[in-house]
Amino acid sequence: MNQDDKKVIDLLKTLSIDMIYEAKSGHPGICLGASPIIYTLYARHMNINTNDTTWLNRDRFIMSAGHGSALLYACLFLAGYNITLDDLKNFRSINSKTPGHPEFGVTPGVDATTGPLGEGLATAVGMAISEAHLEARYNKKKKSLMDKNAIQIFNYNTYVLCSDGDLMEGVSYEAASLAGTLKLGKLIVLYDSNNICLDGSTSKTFTENVLKRFEALGWHTQCVNNGEDVNQIDKSIIKAKMVTDKPSIIEIKTVIGKYSKNEGTNKVHGTPLSKEDITSLKTTLGVIDVPFTIQEEVVSIFRKQIYDRSNKKYTLWAEDYNEYMNDAPSMLKAEIECLMTRGLKFDVISMFKDRFAKDYKDALRSTNGDVLQTITNSMPFMIGGCADVATSTKAYVPNMGDFSSNDYSCRNIFYGVREHVSGSISNGIALSGLRPYSSCFLTFSDYLKPSIRLSAMMNLPVVYIFTHDSILNGEDGPTHQPIEQLAMLRSIPNLDVFRPADANEIVGCWDLILKNTNKPSAIVISKEEVQIINTTSSFDVKFGAYIVRKETNKLDGIIIATGTEVSLAIKIANRLYETNNLDIRVISMPCMSKYKEQTDEYKNMLLPMGIKVIVMEFLSSFGWGEFVYNDKYLITLNEFGKSGKKEDILKEFKLDYMNVLNKVYELLK
Amino acid sequence: MNQDDKKVIDLLKTLSIDMIYEAKSGHPGICLGASPIIYTLYARHMNINTNDTTWLNRDRFIMSAGHGSALLYACLFLAGYNITLDDLKNFRSINSKTPGHPEFGVTPGVDATTGPLGEGLATAVGMAISEAHLEARYNKKKKSLMDKNAIQIFNYNTYVLCSDGDLMEGVSYEAASLAGTLKLGKLIVLYDSNNICLDGSTSKTFTENVLKRFEALGWHTQCVNNGEDVNQIDKSIIKAKMVTDKPSIIEIKTVIGKYSKNEGTNKVHGTPLSKEDITSLKTTLGVIDVPFTIQEEVVSIFRKQIYDRSNKKYTLWAEDYNEYMNDAPSMLKAEIECLMTRGLKFDVISMFKDRFAKDYKDALRSTNGDVLQTITNSMPFMIGGCADVATSTKAYVPNMGDFSSNDYSCRNIFYGVREHVSGSISNGIALSGLRPYSSCFLTFSDYLKPSIRLSAMMNLPVVYIFTHDSILNGEDGPTHQPIEQLAMLRSIPNLDVFRPADANEIVGCWDLILKNTNKPSAIVISKEEVQIINTTSSFDVKFGAYIVRKETNKLDGIIIATGTEVSLAIKIANRLYETNNLDIRVISMPCMSKYKEQTDEYKNMLLPMGIKVIVMEFLSSFGWGEFVYNDKYLITLNEFGKSGKKEDILKEFKLDYMNVLNKVYELLK
Repeated sequence: MNQDDKKVIDLLKTLSIDMIYEAKSGHPGICLGASPIIYTLYARHMNINTNDTTWLNRDRFIMSAGHGSALLYACLFLAGYNITLDDLKNFRSINSKTPGHPEFGVTPGVDATTGPLGEGLATAVGMAISEAHLEARYNKKKKSLMDKNAIQIFNYNTYVLCSDGDLMEGVSYEAASLAGTLKLGKLIVLYDSNNICLDGSTSKTFTENVLKRFEALGWHTQCVNNGEDVNQIDKSIIKAKMVTDKPSIIEIKTVIGKYSKNEGTNKVHGTPLSKEDITSLKTTLGVIDVPFTIQEEVVSIFRKQIYDRSNKKYTLWAEDYNEYMNDAPSMLKAEIECLMTRGLKFDVISMFKDRFAKDYKDALRSTNGDVLQTITNSMPFMIGGCADVATSTKAYVPNMGDFSSNDYSCRNIFYGVREHVSGSISNGIALSGLRPYSSCFLTFSDYLKPSIRLSAMMNLPVVYIFTHDSILNGEDGPTHQPIEQLAMLRSIPNLDVFRPADANEIVGCWDLILKNTNKPSAIVISKEEVQIINTTSSFDVKFGAYIVRKETNKLDGIIIATGTEVSLAIKIANRLYETNNLDIRVISMPCMSKYKEQTDEYKNMLLPMGIKVIVMEFLSSFGWGEFVYNDKYLITLNEFGKSGKKEDILKEFKLDYMNVLNKVYELLK
Repeated sequence: MNQDDKKVIDLLKTLSIDMIYEAKSGHPGICLGASPIIYTLYARHMNINTNDTTWLNRDRFIMSAGHGSALLYACLFLAGYNITLDDLKNFRSINSKTPGHPEFGVTPGVDATTGPLGEGLATAVGMAISEAHLEARYNKKKKSLMDKNAIQIFNYNTYVLCSDGDLMEGVSYEAASLAGTLKLGKLIVLYDSNNICLDGSTSKTFTENVLKRFEALGWHTQCVNNGEDVNQIDKSIIKAKMVTDKPSIIEIKTVIGKYSKNEGTNKVHGTPLSKEDITSLKTTLGVIDVPFTIQEEVVSIFRKQIYDRSNKKYTLWAEDYNEYMNDAPSMLKAEIECLMTRGLKFDVISMFKDRFAKDYKDALRSTNGDVLQTITNSMPFMIGGCADVATSTKAYVPNMGDFSSNDYSCRNIFYGVREHVSGSISNGIALSGLRPYSSCFLTFSDYLKPSIRLSAMMNLPVVYIFTHDSILNGEDGPTHQPIEQLAMLRSIPNLDVFRPADANEIVGCWDLILKNTNKPSAIVISKEEVQIINTTSSFDVKFGAYIVRKETNKLDGIIIATGTEVSLAIKIANRLYETNNLDIRVISMPCMSKYKEQTDEYKNMLLPMGIKVIVMEFLSSFGWGEFVYNDKYLITLNEFGKSGKKEDILKEFKLDYMNVLNKVYELLK
């Protein structure tokens, strides 16, 4: 490390320590330990343009160890992003550009929200998948060595800084295993290996040979024994970039809280250094002990390194890009311009006009699969996959090929039995400007909860397709029968959850899903065969709830139903009208959150005061209580299911036709 | 494989194929592929007593690939458990002993509920931890080679049969990494390696070198190249049993659906064989083509092998056990007798009588830590740990030592940053008769959701301790601030979720938690300092909700609050009484599910008709709607939090004292 390197690294260290001290909270350990790593990466490798922060072809960096946010912000500030010294002083204060953990959309230069360990690395795999896909899809390949038409508008690396904690999390393993299989050569993980976690030494809980594990997963591995050795770190990154057929991990041995009094211990992980410790540290480093002291020449050293390299790349790229776009057919041009802005719009409802006949009947999962196929064929950014149940969820688009290291241009991803990472990877794909979907059984949405939460927090238009949506799954039994999952999904802020009743509503849901360009959606689909209901409406789904059976003369009661229960509710209402002259309105509520956004006027029109309301959804009643007078009006299920034939299960839980009919009659007679 | 081996294996194959055919659903692939594995295990190794199915010292077996249930049931039937041929014929039918996936408590010989892949292996690690702990705790060790007092009342193996799918799941990696660190030598995993998953060949998604990975995790690894070779499988298990300082994995190469027409493909994974295919298969095997044909002599061959070995073990063990118990002090004797029955009872409320003074004030997490410590000191079965945030959750019992391969008798487990597996392992511990707790931040309860669901499904008394329970976490920001997690937990069937307001309620919650011997509990705890509320009551927690501030003369409105919001509600009610003569009742609702169990009379007493109700809980309103007239009465938070000082956050979301005071006034004036 030369003196210039040292100056910048020391500044990164002292700035982040000062930020944490000022905020009276934060994580100094990683800032002191990992500053040479982030310095080397930005000074010598990251191709970025701080004036064009959404540059399509920029290198991506994810601070998977999100608690190292102070170090990241200090680095981005020094690199020249639109972050001021005051922003650093406001570290961790409300509405600042410098929140406690990195947040996508809040700080320029932050490529993903991180904090929950493991998620960052998993998201990075999604970014690397996207890069490989964009490259395969859009770059003009060389036809000969001298081919001048070859243009690489996509050719970037995805870098991750991760900690021991990141690598303990199951989701990072899932991601790493898949990345190895897919040979994502442009993914480079810098592993800040300090043998300390929050509760103490990793010897208590994490003694595995990490590099050997990654080797087994098909990764290229390297180790830098001295985490202060910038040249060694640099050489390793150079080597990693040269390995194009394997993702790379570089274990870099560091000392947590290096040069502080508690260096090498968990005491320095998450508590600000004392004033005295900061003074001693700055003395050791040989820098002035005044908080937030910036030497302009040090800043220049750093910026010049980044600029000299990146600007050349950027300029060449811009020339290439303009040439490419000038030559591109208008459709292709529009497509690429829409990347990131997600501006490509088309009218789903018109697309499916007259598609489903009045007597159309099919399993909803198959109908949904058909709709997905049609949309994917028209929507170039749509790419997605399934956690090894595509055969069952039907979320597979036959003519789009299987994404693999042999052909990254394909659009069906095989996630394997790895539900959790299918969500995290989808986040990475959405962050790269594409529109991902991810599918599995509704019960196993449990596994993705942490990723769905991050989709919602980052305002990413990920589509979650969850099939097998009730006890009607039958023989597979309670582990495979969702009960409380719909409630779980509905409780997530900024997520629209749809449960369509038939083909018309499926189309309506997808129309809204594609309009949700700044938030995720979940579509919950039955595997049951449903005849199209001719009173349903693709158009009305946008109200969240609407009438699918209007009372004839008088209004004796209302049934709110969703999904497969809508057909049943209508059948029961018709029967009770014929046999008992009970005049029941049936409301389909494909999306509770959309309903809640409606005006009071609309809500009162739909559910007039004083009329008894029954809810019919064969899943948990949690969240439905507000619609009914008391629990007796909930035709729902608040216990785990059972293995059996679906007719037997319905009888067992008194949810078969006759039982429900009688129950409705008793409640409304 | 000799002829006797072949006969039993063929019977296992044909029985399970017949079961699946009869049920018209199930998974023939694994039954045909893995039958030699399960045969070898039961015939030559498993020490069990089919007449004493809860034998403390029995070997445990978990079919982690739960879709192999037919094979497991066929094996348990042949082994002599209380399962009839009719039970097999009723495979997958309602209320049968033979549900679609193995269910603990339903079928004798089934040691854990499985089906969600990965969970079984993770649960087995909990069982192996328990065995190591029980052994270290209760066995009388040899003081010399000739010491006759040495008695091993605990000395059993935990076996797992897992599939490719199990090993793709992140949770199985988390489990395996920890098992390696803890050197759990009595854990033996039999890996049914057939390179096929539901959607096709694993080459698309899972190309890692599994054994090399496990080696890196500190496991002993072996490979059997021919999954039909009983002697090779046998030899490998013998060797694995001899390795006592490492967990073992044996990769056994099998052919999915062996001998069926679709052998070696995913077509045979989850669809019953055709009649024709069954005939052809039985012809190939040389057995009679009549469904459910049992040759008694074949059954005898199998049972004799199991009996001859196990009975000797059982008899010797019973002698040892009696001797041990005769010599044991009464406390110890009572303790061991209570294992599995969880009969050990004591009165938590009395234990903490007068413990907290009237002016007691501390962070709730610290109070909870104190209570946990006291209880653990009195409760020998209590063992638990934390996902690397014990320093923050305070769920650590100082005098109980740190569980490690150096000392398995200790009771603090270091899970590392592995929330998910902390739940699965807790399930394994509970299945072994101990009482586990597992702790992390409330936000990260998302990661454990799949395991909590299994705790609830298996009726296991696992205690989940979730701290940092609201936006008051402050600076760490939205990724660390729970919003919807409490709703998620409350929606899980058969789980009691507690959110205590102060020390009194913490004691009351723990009283109920320990009484929940057949269901899991979650206790949600603030990190905030709270002064004891002298109107709270440990005793009244059992009603789920009760009055903590009674109106003085008239009843102008009711506030329902939980956790830290209870103190605030009382403060506001007192203030509005003084300044505006508004007479408000405040109800603390530490447990919604317990409240829902109360009589209508109690509920009407607490919340009389016609009185306005406000809910005050600084988390998602989802699930609260039924208590209020409309959404305006919900003082809750339905968006993600922000990083900042807690006072600033409260102001940002209009949840600070003055804003809430004014809101309550406006609603009730």
